[in-house]
Amino acid sequence: MPVPGGAKGAGPTVAMVPDGDDRERLVCTDCGYVRYDNPKLIVGAVCTWEDRYLLVRRAIPPREGHWCLPSGFMELGESTEDGAAREVWEEACARVEITDLLALYNLAHISQVHLVYRARMLSPEYAAGPESHEVALIGWDDLPWNDLAYPNVAWALRQHRAMRGRANFAPLGIPADADHPV
Amino acid sequence: MPVPGGAKGAGPTVAMVPDGDDRERLVCTDCGYVRYDNPKLIVGAVCTWEDRYLLVRRAIPPREGHWCLPSGFMELGESTEDGAAREVWEEACARVEITDLLALYNLAHISQVHLVYRARMLSPEYAAGPESHEVALIGWDDLPWNDLAYPNVAWALRQHRAMRGRANFAPLGIPADADHPV
Ligand SMILES: [Zn+2]
Ligand SMILES: [Zn+2]
Repeated sequence: MPVPGGAKGAGPTVAMVPDGDDRERLVCTDCGYVRYDNPKLIVGAVCTWEDRYLLVRRAIPPREGHWCLPSGFMELGESTEDGAAREVWEEACARVEITDLLALYNLAHISQVHLVYRARMLSPEYAAGPESHEVALIGWDDLPWNDLAYPNVAWALRQHRAMRGRANFAPLGIPADADHPV
Repeated sequence: MPVPGGAKGAGPTVAMVPDGDDRERLVCTDCGYVRYDNPKLIVGAVCTWEDRYLLVRRAIPPREGHWCLPSGFMELGESTEDGAAREVWEEACARVEITDLLALYNLAHISQVHLVYRARMLSPEYAAGPESHEVALIGWDDLPWNDLAYPNVAWALRQHRAMRGRANFAPLGIPADADHPV
């Protein structure tokens, strides 16, 4: 009985069309398990304290060492807002109030949907969680534009800035001038 | 080598915490595969032609025989908008233009996130797809309120009605007066 950390079967690696389905799914030829793989939801937040932005420097791959918004895969049994607040807590040890949805980015080529919320920090306290090298509250003029983990971090920061003072707007998408989809 | 439709192993059914993880995941004791299960995205659309709403009567469980909006699980490699338009095509054989995001419903107790778009039909043509008994364009006063597949169908229809003539608004959530979460 192989278990995680021990020897493993191949898992679902062979593409075939299951009975009654209309497209290929990955199937495990060891045990017959069919994986109905769906796009992943990534939830995160642009968190602010006064005029400063909460960024985390990643301590894990991918993009280790680069600055990112607190964000990650949504877990079972939580709402998108609760997931975003959980990621802020796990990565930046900060407590926030989620205010509204800033952006929805479809990264279809990697089957990810990113939901980026706006959030207000409840205090200026923060600390590096286990997945972060460091955490910082950074003013607009000092943001590390050349050292961001992903283009969508820059998109969200710029859109957050553009939407200051506005509420009740449709979530923004990938900027029209984005030339790199991730 | 069991394959789909033949004898199957149990698949990932045993809960344990994999090495390096912080919570239980389902593991297959036959082959060691670890299932990182995430919430599912359901995409759908309130589609209109003039003042009428496009509904499909489900031909498959769950809620077979009841009226629903075209909607379903998002597939890999598509955007949320493309997924919503695909579901409309598969279930109602109608071509639509997705206009904007009407609602985002967190059904956390069943780990689903529903994105409901507004869409304009490009013509009044439609037909039942393989998962539908029938499809109809129905005026507001004739909507089958007592025969809807899920409460969220009613939420979306009412919110669509409330938002007529409005654009660029934050996606609506579960109505405050909803007493039944699904
Ligand atoms: Zn297997
Ligand atoms: Zn297995």
